[in-house]
Amino acid sequence: MEPIILVHGGAGNIRDWRVLPKIEGVKTAAKVAYEILEKGGNALDAVEQAVRILEDDESMNAGRGSVLNEDGEVAMDACIMDGQTLDAGSVAVVKDIAHPITLARLVMEKTPHTFLAGHGANRFAKENGMKILSPGSLVTKDALYALEYFKKHGGIQGDCGDIENPGEVGTVGAVAIDCRGHVAAATSTGGLNGKMEGRVGDTPQIGGGTYADDETGAASATGHGESIMKFCVTHSIITAIRNNLDPQEATDSVLNRMTEKLKQTAGAISISKTGDIGIGMTTKRMPWAYRKGNTLFYGIEQGKQHSEVLVE
Amino acid sequence: MEPIILVHGGAGNIRDWRVLPKIEGVKTAAKVAYEILEKGGNALDAVEQAVRILEDDESMNAGRGSVLNEDGEVAMDACIMDGQTLDAGSVAVVKDIAHPITLARLVMEKTPHTFLAGHGANRFAKENGMKILSPGSLVTKDALYALEYFKKHGGIQGDCGDIENPGEVGTVGAVAIDCRGHVAAATSTGGLNGKMEGRVGDTPQIGGGTYADDETGAASATGHGESIMKFCVTHSIITAIRNNLDPQEATDSVLNRMTEKLKQTAGAISISKTGDIGIGMTTKRMPWAYRKGNTLFYGIEQGKQHSEVLVE
Repeated sequence: MEPIILVHGGAGNIRDWRVLPKIEGVKTAAKVAYEILEKGGNALDAVEQAVRILEDDESMNAGRGSVLNEDGEVAMDACIMDGQTLDAGSVAVVKDIAHPITLARLVMEKTPHTFLAGHGANRFAKENGMKILSPGSLVTKDALYALEYFKKHGGIQGDCGDIENPGEVGTVGAVAIDCRGHVAAATSTGGLNGKMEGRVGDTPQIGGGTYADDETGAASATGHGESIMKFCVTHSIITAIRNNLDPQEATDSVLNRMTEKLKQTAGAISISKTGDIGIGMTTKRMPWAYRKGNTLFYGIEQGKQHSEVLVE
Repeated sequence: MEPIILVHGGAGNIRDWRVLPKIEGVKTAAKVAYEILEKGGNALDAVEQAVRILEDDESMNAGRGSVLNEDGEVAMDACIMDGQTLDAGSVAVVKDIAHPITLARLVMEKTPHTFLAGHGANRFAKENGMKILSPGSLVTKDALYALEYFKKHGGIQGDCGDIENPGEVGTVGAVAIDCRGHVAAATSTGGLNGKMEGRVGDTPQIGGGTYADDETGAASATGHGESIMKFCVTHSIITAIRNNLDPQEATDSVLNRMTEKLKQTAGAISISKTGDIGIGMTTKRMPWAYRKGNTLFYGIEQGKQHSEVLVE
């Protein structure tokens, strides 16, 4: 099986000045995480690595650079799922750790549970030797400005935010298939700018923002979290692929039905067990990139794709 | 449309001495909540009322009588969903409130979000005038004994617990259709006996433990939460009904596939927009009851049904 990794950096009405850093971010994540697959590594390690890179990238709404809640705090959600076993790990409302996706993986591998939220998730992180950062370490100037703007102008905004709102940076996610045909998905986010304390979005909801099943494929979603949750977007995409739609048709049809029914926008990426991919959005923009062999494909506008050949 | 309400009191290897109080509990909830539907009230109010009655019932694993986490605390999850709009409200890891299902409904109706967890959920409860009980108020003698048993004998046990484990009381849930053909679902639970602080189960995961969509029907699940989440049991049941299975076939087929794939057990109830119902379990027992007109149907063993006519 030829391995592939496909990543996104959040769907929304992304402003022009954010386009370039976001494209650079997803390209780097796809390029670097692919090296794991190239060496025969597994899909789970590759999606975790891609998301870790994007969590470190301040132009994304995940890890450092996350939007802030109503109290001015970074409170993050993440989920990772292994298509081979359907094992999954989710965390929600976690604070002061650099890599929520790695904490989600620890939940999957070191507890009898799949989902830890709030104080219990942070306690588990500490007990497992994960570095707890000093409060405020993940807060950036852009995030502070976005919250200030939100408090003045109102409206709940996130990565599907209004074009005028600086809080519309993006959730990040990845799907991959490895050389043995196993798939995995991972998603990480700071959620909505100005959200209430304790708000949980679609990202850590299995079948909402994240799903993977070797029998069919894997998907990661981004956009208006409340709508993605209600519509079970990634589970719906995987079910559509199982019912013989190709991933592109499946992704487009689920997102279009969600937007028609709930009047909110979203984006998603998907991959099937045959290695076909889907990249869809009902937003203006969503940065994405995928790598297959030495070619890197990427884009951010609806229907537009670029590619470049990587030279050793 | 002839209204119906169908409730469950948790799937598991329920011990004999718990059978009678559980049957009485689900019968009372179905009987009383039906009065709302009978007067032309809506499905959403009926499922909330049914679950409130079961949260007050100490023989159930919800509200007072919930199992305890590793710290000896009651930490509850709940979700309510309105099939008319797909609006939903979920709470997780909430403490010291009598009716998590009513808090979930407040999240749905009074916030721009669908899901609040932990401290933020309790803060929202307080801000909305919900009574915060003194710590320990929801802890029962049975729950204390169950935790002590768990700490001596190990193993994570919940409402799908081992027959010898006293912590195997049940998650509660309800689905209903009202005279206008609207459906709703509600589920509430104390989760797993001895669970880690912050553990979130399937109950508040839309499409995991709870789902409702007027275009198809509604469902509520119970059992091994981690497996129900990974399999998106209620969303899978609703999707199967959409693909023309009747609710009984849909419920049985999804539960059987889940148990075959993940080697864990569960139960579920469902209702279609045509008013047909499904009641399924891969556990030994699950108490259930439904009321249609003046007849109350109920049962707890696989494949066995009783009925009685209610006299005014």
